[in-house]
Amino acid sequence: MTSHTPETTWNALTLHWQQLADLGGIGSLLGWDQSTFLPVGAAGGRARQQALLAGIVHERATDAAYGRLLDDAQAHTDWTSVQARTLALARRQFEEATRLPGTFVQEFTQHVGESYSAWVEARPANDFTRMVPYLERTLELSLQAASYFPEFASPMDYFIDQSDEGMTAEVVDRVFDDLRAALVPLVEAVAQAPEPRTDFLHRFYAPDVQLRVGGRIAADFGYDLTRGRQDLTAHPFMTRLGGQDVRITTRVREHDLTEALYSTLHETGHALYEQGVAPELLGTPLGGGVSSGVHESQSRLWENLVGRSRAFWAAYFPAFRDAFPEQLSDVTEDEMYRAVNVARRSLIRTDADELTYNLHVITRYGLERELLAGRLAVRDLAQAWHAAYETTLGLRAPSDVDGVLQDVHWYGGGIGGAFQGYTLGNVLSAQFHAAAQRALPGLEAQVARGAFSELHGWLRDHVYAPGSTYTPAELVQRVTGEPLTVGPYVAYLRGKYTALYGVG
Amino acid sequence: MTSHTPETTWNALTLHWQQLADLGGIGSLLGWDQSTFLPVGAAGGRARQQALLAGIVHERATDAAYGRLLDDAQAHTDWTSVQARTLALARRQFEEATRLPGTFVQEFTQHVGESYSAWVEARPANDFTRMVPYLERTLELSLQAASYFPEFASPMDYFIDQSDEGMTAEVVDRVFDDLRAALVPLVEAVAQAPEPRTDFLHRFYAPDVQLRVGGRIAADFGYDLTRGRQDLTAHPFMTRLGGQDVRITTRVREHDLTEALYSTLHETGHALYEQGVAPELLGTPLGGGVSSGVHESQSRLWENLVGRSRAFWAAYFPAFRDAFPEQLSDVTEDEMYRAVNVARRSLIRTDADELTYNLHVITRYGLERELLAGRLAVRDLAQAWHAAYETTLGLRAPSDVDGVLQDVHWYGGGIGGAFQGYTLGNVLSAQFHAAAQRALPGLEAQVARGAFSELHGWLRDHVYAPGSTYTPAELVQRVTGEPLTVGPYVAYLRGKYTALYGVG
Repeated sequence: MTSHTPETTWNALTLHWQQLADLGGIGSLLGWDQSTFLPVGAAGGRARQQALLAGIVHERATDAAYGRLLDDAQAHTDWTSVQARTLALARRQFEEATRLPGTFVQEFTQHVGESYSAWVEARPANDFTRMVPYLERTLELSLQAASYFPEFASPMDYFIDQSDEGMTAEVVDRVFDDLRAALVPLVEAVAQAPEPRTDFLHRFYAPDVQLRVGGRIAADFGYDLTRGRQDLTAHPFMTRLGGQDVRITTRVREHDLTEALYSTLHETGHALYEQGVAPELLGTPLGGGVSSGVHESQSRLWENLVGRSRAFWAAYFPAFRDAFPEQLSDVTEDEMYRAVNVARRSLIRTDADELTYNLHVITRYGLERELLAGRLAVRDLAQAWHAAYETTLGLRAPSDVDGVLQDVHWYGGGIGGAFQGYTLGNVLSAQFHAAAQRALPGLEAQVARGAFSELHGWLRDHVYAPGSTYTPAELVQRVTGEPLTVGPYVAYLRGKYTALYGVG
Repeated sequence: MTSHTPETTWNALTLHWQQLADLGGIGSLLGWDQSTFLPVGAAGGRARQQALLAGIVHERATDAAYGRLLDDAQAHTDWTSVQARTLALARRQFEEATRLPGTFVQEFTQHVGESYSAWVEARPANDFTRMVPYLERTLELSLQAASYFPEFASPMDYFIDQSDEGMTAEVVDRVFDDLRAALVPLVEAVAQAPEPRTDFLHRFYAPDVQLRVGGRIAADFGYDLTRGRQDLTAHPFMTRLGGQDVRITTRVREHDLTEALYSTLHETGHALYEQGVAPELLGTPLGGGVSSGVHESQSRLWENLVGRSRAFWAAYFPAFRDAFPEQLSDVTEDEMYRAVNVARRSLIRTDADELTYNLHVITRYGLERELLAGRLAVRDLAQAWHAAYETTLGLRAPSDVDGVLQDVHWYGGGIGGAFQGYTLGNVLSAQFHAAAQRALPGLEAQVARGAFSELHGWLRDHVYAPGSTYTPAELVQRVTGEPLTVGPYVAYLRGKYTALYGVG
């Protein structure tokens, strides 16, 4: 009856994608407002609005007519490579949304909600035993979720692929093994060295001045405030509310100079990625960052490889001295650089520094691997945690509160894929940064002048503009000339920390 | 097949109403954010999100299955009076949403958009002639819209009923005639009297201090900030984002002490109404203010009858003196009271004071009446405007810029029903306030102490809690013991202004 030319199919798909993107933006607004300005009494009503919108999004994302459009498109073979990639990602998202039965999703959601509520009580009570049956069920449900995607070699492969398309457990294992082998002795050596002074980081720093200075640096990096904004929140994040609306949020602590600064630079990195996506891709499946690893690489690149560099402090120490003349009266530029790079072995992931952070991630990833493979029982998880920390960080938590009970991820979500992206991001941050250094010979001198337009422009052209046009692996290969590899990251950390601590 | 008991029908309706309310709240969030925090570059994307959501809302508001549920409910006669009223309002909204054909709504929307764009250029060019064909078409389309509701005696009755259920042009005519007869000589007398000093209102007042003082008074009035918040905007408004989420916005001018204060008190009045609706009505057709007249009565009651009273300044002048000691060093409490009540005949509605404002409204209402009745041609509207202003306010605008071109309403919307609510609200504000005074003998003394809990409690119990349980006319009768009448308002204005200006 109706003629489905490739063009009409494509146009209908384009319209549908734009609507899905717009609904996604509305959902992001509900979440952004919830985390910034929502009156305390309105939490329940907001949750109901979010559930209603999620239902509408799910309806449209799984719409049978949309599925037929995707089938029509698949029957056609004459697409450009960008169109073919767009269709492949759309298909991927469609399968993700349709294969899990509604009743299963409901059961999983409800279980996770109950598990989270139990954890909120069990954690302060140091009661891992109470959480065992919850986690056992979570593990079962996670395995069941993975079973709907039999094309993956293992459940872990499925979970990794969800956030890092195309990545496999085998690759992550190898990367993490290499990284651990390099990091453990470096961390050990740094632990023996004397610590730099950090006392001045904990003087009183007026929150509004902290925000002003951090916001200025974000703008210097290239964050466009005509298409974004910065607000206060409890747990900082970056969020896309629309094609031209990418916002960051920040937490400020009066007696911590680094909290607001580095969370601002971190979220700015995420935001630069999203703001840099080519306009013509916005509102399509290609119109956003391609994977959690690549996303985290950009937050970490700007936070750490730029923001914790010696050159950065050459550029900005004067601004901090101007903003906080009394608090920094007895501090040198070099002392500041050393203080923001202090490395200490510790028990808590979220407090960990740049150097030791990855060992926390690798530990959790290893435990997830064992749980999903059936080689570790949930009831033995707490002891396995302690054992892994002793091996990797040489520390043992005095209780499960600072051990297996510390992170919300397993208790308020599924088991699998929650952690590896952080460290993949760190590895990639150095790999991308090394490529930028090769392409921009004067980079360090530019950073030391607070001039970021070349670095930002290069990253925008090579990493940001393509959005999800290439798979993560293709992107890494194109931009750096090699596949994912720990070499640049290990070299970066080794060079930085041996110089800082006089070790190695 | 399925059995539709009244209970299952009612439950299905309740669920649907809650979803409509939640979608409405999401739409309000999109609008609130647009007016407060949206990055400038994101305007286009936001408009598309709003249109998408409006489409979803329209789909659900006009859903055939929902219509059948309403029919099922109508077939049943055993409802409580509150249920019957709920169903009647739901039916009213359903008819409003379904009777206008989609193509007609589209055409009207597009025409109004084009008309608005033309007005944006024609107004500064003082070019009413250019707007004549646009307005002629707007008038035609407005009449066509009304023609879908033949149960009303006239198009004007339909438009008035849309915002003030049950009110008719006949009643409004009578009320406005009575009011004009009382106001014209009073305004004339005031115009002859010497003006009080107002110079100090235009000194520099730090915006953040203005906001703090205004916010404190809003809280004193009873505005609950655990279920609301106050933010900055260009055009102040109150908005409900959820059952427990009623927000106000404010504009602050550095050299105007009254702008932020009285817009805060005005929007607080609207917010107290919405926050006071009984919790069990939220998410149903009864869960909000009943009409624009009653809503405006509450904003005006708190803004004018409380906030511009002598007693109010007895309570708050010390706080203003503390906040602005230098700016108010040569000002007495009585001078402040007189300054915020200055009355001047003027050409611009939005700059008009409490006394003369209604004459602007009555003038516009009269012109709308004539246009809709076919007794006035659009091409004669500019002259009719000048003539009406000469008769009513004794003024003639030097051009159409400050005449017929000044308000956006007719150029960016339909003709009919846009204005009368403001003055109905003023009339009702005095009627409700007089009832409160009868019920609360010590009211003025309480206001003079900044104690509002009795007034707020009385209004909450009698006006706010019922939401839309009663029709506007029923509510006015129940609360004041009589139908809508100008007596209390005229008495209030006459008493206040003869005392202030020593006239009459």
